[in-house]
Amino acid sequence: MTHKIAVLPGDGIGPEITEQAVRVLTALGLDLDLQTAPVGGAAYEAEGHPLPAATLNLALDSAAILFGAVGDWKYDQLARELRPEQAILGLRKALGLFANLRPAILYPQLANASSLKPEIVAGLDILIVRELTGDIYFGQPRGVREVADGPFKGERQGYDTMHYAESEVRRIAHVAFRAAQKRNKRLCSVDKANVLETSQFWRDIMIAVAPEYPDVTLSHMYVDNAAMQLVREPKAFDVVVTGNLFGDILSDEAAMLTGSIGMLPSASLNASNQGLYEPSHGSAPDIAGQNMANPLATILSAAMLLRYSLNQGAQADRIEAAVQAVLEQGLRTADIYEAGTDKVTTSQMGDAVLKAL
Amino acid sequence: MTHKIAVLPGDGIGPEITEQAVRVLTALGLDLDLQTAPVGGAAYEAEGHPLPAATLNLALDSAAILFGAVGDWKYDQLARELRPEQAILGLRKALGLFANLRPAILYPQLANASSLKPEIVAGLDILIVRELTGDIYFGQPRGVREVADGPFKGERQGYDTMHYAESEVRRIAHVAFRAAQKRNKRLCSVDKANVLETSQFWRDIMIAVAPEYPDVTLSHMYVDNAAMQLVREPKAFDVVVTGNLFGDILSDEAAMLTGSIGMLPSASLNASNQGLYEPSHGSAPDIAGQNMANPLATILSAAMLLRYSLNQGAQADRIEAAVQAVLEQGLRTADIYEAGTDKVTTSQMGDAVLKAL
Ligand SMILES: CC(C)[C@H](C(=O)O)[C@@H](O)C(=O)O
Ligand SMILES: CC(C)[C@H](C(=O)O)[C@@H](O)C(=O)O
Repeated sequence: MTHKIAVLPGDGIGPEITEQAVRVLTALGLDLDLQTAPVGGAAYEAEGHPLPAATLNLALDSAAILFGAVGDWKYDQLARELRPEQAILGLRKALGLFANLRPAILYPQLANASSLKPEIVAGLDILIVRELTGDIYFGQPRGVREVADGPFKGERQGYDTMHYAESEVRRIAHVAFRAAQKRNKRLCSVDKANVLETSQFWRDIMIAVAPEYPDVTLSHMYVDNAAMQLVREPKAFDVVVTGNLFGDILSDEAAMLTGSIGMLPSASLNASNQGLYEPSHGSAPDIAGQNMANPLATILSAAMLLRYSLNQGAQADRIEAAVQAVLEQGLRTADIYEAGTDKVTTSQMGDAVLKAL
Repeated sequence: MTHKIAVLPGDGIGPEITEQAVRVLTALGLDLDLQTAPVGGAAYEAEGHPLPAATLNLALDSAAILFGAVGDWKYDQLARELRPEQAILGLRKALGLFANLRPAILYPQLANASSLKPEIVAGLDILIVRELTGDIYFGQPRGVREVADGPFKGERQGYDTMHYAESEVRRIAHVAFRAAQKRNKRLCSVDKANVLETSQFWRDIMIAVAPEYPDVTLSHMYVDNAAMQLVREPKAFDVVVTGNLFGDILSDEAAMLTGSIGMLPSASLNASNQGLYEPSHGSAPDIAGQNMANPLATILSAAMLLRYSLNQGAQADRIEAAVQAVLEQGLRTADIYEAGTDKVTTSQMGDAVLKAL
């Protein structure tokens, strides 16, 4: 059976890192139908929209999407609905990709890259499960209006709506509990239940789902405290589950603890395991086209694609082992380079992974 | 002229740390009328409400409030409106304390306490200016309702409203720009303008206010990126201004970078410089009553009180110098203790500051 995969390289370093991941996927000897389409700023330039209909249809029609990165400062002046980021929001919504899995792993070979002390982060391995299609990201109504009463009556006001429905929280709870079952069986749900109704509602549902997973220990933490504890003692976490907005902030903070965000993949899944796979880092327009970006996060995203959407766990393991091997060999792109290692380009790193497969 | 000051010790370690700050304030020879009232869980126990009318009236009628800390897990089961945190939210709202100033300073003597590498945090000195009476904290409507249409129709849904009116953003912008003028003249406004209407509105107003402060350089950063950059290179920041919710998260993250949150004061001010002053740390019920908590954040909060609400900058300087002196002498409470220093109790630390004055 042929698996159709949409390859959306996007902007900045997107094309060059995606190219290396495609080489790796192609080398595995699987029956894959890889189809490329423009997305983000590149699609805006070519077709006037960051998520053209043909790109969206290809994505909807594929088992999985390999996504590079989108965005560039040069699009900051565009109307919001034409900016590159809208492509990723549109794909999440259209495909119902509600479950974002973002591992924050510190590879032992890269312990020095972190801005934290080695003893705080060595061996770090946490998984952030972020809800990705609800919350204040998509809540209606939103906009700018006139204030109807109170001290600011008559003024203009920007506003948004945060909300979560019961089944939205339930389904991400199940994803998170199951992920915890496969790991160290500790799940920390992060919210702001001391202030927000949405958070209290979220917390109540997490508590209601917990008895279905008696082997998992559920705890709760306020988001401000979680932002602190990630800095203080990140290894105390196993799996963290949280809403879209808090997850945006905490997953980036957690990734940066490793100091090697160029190594971190992510998966965004829907109920039928269709998924979008992308590196945790951005499009880095400042180094685009220079063959110096780190392709490993994208290559590891391809491994997640195989594991979650194609049920090819053994092939995913192969890729992950190959990445470990190139790190062992001392090969480093500029972002993770340190004295005593070998600095390589994007394509040389791809070559090395292919060879190690 | 007598200055009336409300002393609200609160819960957990609140009473013992406040006691030391009161000793320091009293020793300065100023004409102060210090009046104590219960707040938080302590007030709930005594009077059935976390913010009794008499406490609120005392606060409204004072030039400034010295606040200890509120909260204890034992109140987690209470209805939201009776929980200790409601006292602090109620005081902020009733007094219009819209401007929260939270310095994150790493004292050179305490560089080892941080979980970050010394070269990343040594000399850290950033100021987070957090808007404190608007945003999703107080936005209406909020609650739990039935979903009217769409895929979750008929389900229960928790919801909240985020909003900012024009003058709310303007006044916090002015506070932040002025603070930046007194420091290194760099202001970073943090928002999520690529997703939220409230944030785009916030950003537009920051940009509109900027020309009034031509000597300050304004930049903008998305909140997820800010959470990362605080970990990666915190010293790149000077003053950060942000909304209530993002400020809650980022100010705690920034405080924890120092590893010595027991040292960090905060001020919450209204338009007439009436203010509430409290340590950045919490009520730490686990160590309450053991005479081991660090009183320095509260003592430094008293210094901020003198500077901002009583216009007694020289007296504030005196307190801050005394705190520097006790650190120089090697005195440390348990939270900042390390081998080679002298471990002291809460009251011994208070004694030492008094002596150093
Ligand atoms: C680009 C932006 C809309 C997006 C988000 O906020 O979700 C990004 O930060 C992410 O985390 O994937
Ligand atoms: C106690 C809580 C309501 C409060 C807040 O979220 O503002 C606290 O976290 C703070 O930052 O002062």
